Amino acid sequence: MSIDLGVTGDFHVHLRDGKMMELIAPTVREGGVSIAYIMPNLVPPITTIDRVVQYKNELQALAPKTTFLMTLYLSKELTPELIHEAAKLKAIAGVKCYPAGVTTNSSAGVDPNDFSDFYPIFKALEEENLVLNLHGEKPSTDKDGEEIHVLNAEPEFLPALKKLHSDFPNLKIVLEHCTTKAAIDTINEINQDNKGPIKVAASITAHHLSLIVDNWAGNPINFCKPVAKLPQDRKALVAAATSGNPWFFFGSDSAPHPLHAKQVHVGVCAGVYTQALAIPYIAQVFDKQGKLDKLKGFVSDFGKQFYEIKEEDLVSKDHTILVRKEQQVPDVVSQGDLKVAPFKAGEKLDFSIEWKSIN
Amino acid sequence: MSIDLGVTGDFHVHLRDGKMMELIAPTVREGGVSIAYIMPNLVPPITTIDRVVQYKNELQALAPKTTFLMTLYLSKELTPELIHEAAKLKAIAGVKCYPAGVTTNSSAGVDPNDFSDFYPIFKALEEENLVLNLHGEKPSTDKDGEEIHVLNAEPEFLPALKKLHSDFPNLKIVLEHCTTKAAIDTINEINQDNKGPIKVAASITAHHLSLIVDNWAGNPINFCKPVAKLPQDRKALVAAATSGNPWFFFGSDSAPHPLHAKQVHVGVCAGVYTQALAIPYIAQVFDKQGKLDKLKGFVSDFGKQFYEIKEEDLVSKDHTILVRKEQQVPDVVSQGDLKVAPFKAGEKLDFSIEWKSIN
Repeated sequence: MSIDLGVTGDFHVHLRDGKMMELIAPTVREGGVSIAYIMPNLVPPITTIDRVVQYKNELQALAPKTTFLMTLYLSKELTPELIHEAAKLKAIAGVKCYPAGVTTNSSAGVDPNDFSDFYPIFKALEEENLVLNLHGEKPSTDKDGEEIHVLNAEPEFLPALKKLHSDFPNLKIVLEHCTTKAAIDTINEINQDNKGPIKVAASITAHHLSLIVDNWAGNPINFCKPVAKLPQDRKALVAAATSGNPWFFFGSDSAPHPLHAKQVHVGVCAGVYTQALAIPYIAQVFDKQGKLDKLKGFVSDFGKQFYEIKEEDLVSKDHTILVRKEQQVPDVVSQGDLKVAPFKAGEKLDFSIEWKSIN
Repeated sequence: MSIDLGVTGDFHVHLRDGKMMELIAPTVREGGVSIAYIMPNLVPPITTIDRVVQYKNELQALAPKTTFLMTLYLSKELTPELIHEAAKLKAIAGVKCYPAGVTTNSSAGVDPNDFSDFYPIFKALEEENLVLNLHGEKPSTDKDGEEIHVLNAEPEFLPALKKLHSDFPNLKIVLEHCTTKAAIDTINEINQDNKGPIKVAASITAHHLSLIVDNWAGNPINFCKPVAKLPQDRKALVAAATSGNPWFFFGSDSAPHPLHAKQVHVGVCAGVYTQALAIPYIAQVFDKQGKLDKLKGFVSDFGKQFYEIKEEDLVSKDHTILVRKEQQVPDVVSQGDLKVAPFKAGEKLDFSIEWKSIN
C-alpha cells in the first residue's frame, strides 16, 4: 500500500533557533512535510522584516528542500506600514497572535479581552490578504465569577474569535491547534453557510488527535498548551480532521524542548515534539478511522488552498508517499548534548514516508 | 496569636517503608499532627495481621509520641474471620479500598463497578464498627459512551458510594480525599437529615484546598490522584472544610516520592508530600477565609469523633498549638541520598506549630 500525498504542508511549526534549530529544521522533511509555516516566538520574538528574512535564510540553509512560510509576532512593535512593507517583499505569510502568558515564549503577547489596539494591524493584514494566526486561549485567572483555567481557556476565547471575524469579515484567520469540541463546532458554524472563499479556518495537531487529559497527567512529554482535553473533545477533533471539510487542516504545533526541561518537578515546558514523524503519526489516526482517503486533503490540499500557495512559491515540488511500513519511534532525537523526546517515544507506528522526486 | 488545637489527627497518611519511612514517619509530629491514620499500600500491600502489627511497631519506634491507627488493604486475601480477629486484637481501625490501577501501588485493588465479592468483608466491618476507607475513583476507560478520565473519575464513583451506604447503613465509610463539588454535595446530602451518629464522612487534604488543574499542569510536584480539579471544586472543598460540619475532617493523603520519581518526562509518581507542614498549610487556607475558629473542628475534633478515639488510645495527649509565625517551606526534605520535595517548596507560610506537653 502506498498513497501519494502530493506536496504536503504543516501549517504550525516551531523550529526554534541556535542548536535546537540545527537539530530540528532538517526533521521537517524527515516527517514527510514539504511546506512549513514557521512560528515567530523566539526570544526575543520576531517583530522586524530584517529578522524574519534572516531567520528564513538560516532555516533554508539547514533544510534546502523545505518551503518556509514566515510570520511576525503580534505586538506593539508592529505597525500597519511594516505589514504593508512585509507584504510587498513577500517576507511573511501571516502574523501570529499570542495571548500574554498562555504558552512557551508568550510573555510579549497581547490581551485577548481587548484586541482593539491591534485593529490597524488587522486592517493591514486584511488589505494584504495576509493571515492572522490565533493562539485561541484566554489567560488563566481565578477572578471570582470568571475563572479561566487550562480546560476552559479555549472555549472562553471563542467569542473573541467570532467578534474578530465579524469586525474583519475579509480577514483570513486561523484558530490554531484546536483542542475542544466547542472550537470545532464554532469553526463549522462559521463556515456552514459560507459560499465564498474560506475566511476562518482551524489547524489541528497530530498529538491532539491522540491525547486526552489522562495522557499528560503525570507525563510531561505530553504536556502542551493548549492542554489535551476530554474524550469527547478528541473525538470531535478526529471527526473534523477526517471530515474532508477544507477549513480544517494540519498544523503540528511541534514544539521541541530539551529533555532536561521536561524532566523537572516544577515548571515543565509546554510542547510536544512531533516534527520528525508528523505524517506517520497522523496516518495512524486516519487509518484507525478507516479514513486514509481523507488524509491528502488534511495534510496537503486544504492548507495550501487556504494560504493560496502557488507552484512557483515552492522550493521543491517533491511528493510525499505514505507507505504501510512499521517503524519505531526513537526514545530521543539528539545531537551532541542536546536531546529531545519525541511524541510516542519508544512506540511502534504502522506507517513510514518516502519522497518522490518531481522536477 | 496562638490557638490550642488539642490532640490533632490526620486521617489519611502514607508513611511508606524502608528509608522513606525513616525519613517521613518523624515528620508527622513536625507537621503538628498527633494521630496518624496509616495507609496500607506498601509493596506488597498489607493484608495480614502479623504484617500490620509489625508495621505499626516499626512506625512507633520511629515516632514514639505519635498515635498510629492502622488499616488493611482490601483484596481477595482478606476474610471476614481475619477482620473479626483484627478487631479483637485492636490491630486495625479500618480497611482501605483502592480501585485497581487508579493511583500509586493500587494494582492489587478492586473493581468498583462490582463490590459484591467484598460484601462479606463489609458485613464484618459493620459488625465490628470498623471503618471502610474508600479511594473514590473509577478507573479510567475510553470505552465508548462511558468514558472515565481523571476529571470525572470521582463523580462517576459516587453512585457506588451511595449504593454501599444503602446496602450497609450501619457501616462507617469515609470517602477519602474529596476533590469535587459533586462529592461534597453527595456527602452533605447523605448527612442532611441524619439525626444519629455519622456513618458516611469525607476526608479533605491540605493540597486540594489550594490546587486546581492549572497548578499540576506542568508541575509534577502537584500531581496526585485524585487530581486537583476546577476553581468551583476547590471552592466547594474550602467551604466544606471550614463549614464546621462534623462529617468533613482532615486527611492529608501526604504521599512522599523520591524527587527523582517526580523529575521524569513519563510516568511521574502521583502524590503530594504535605506531612511536615500539614497543620500550617491548612491554617493558611482557613485564615484566608477568616475561619481560623473552625480549624480545631476540622483537624482535631471531627475525625476523633467519627473514629471514636478514646483518651486511653493515645500514646501522647500533647496539644498542638498554632502560632502566627512565618516560616519558609524547604526546597527538599532529605536524608542521605533520599530527597523529597514538599508541597509549596520554597514558599512562605504564615503559621508554625508548637507542642504543649500534657501529662
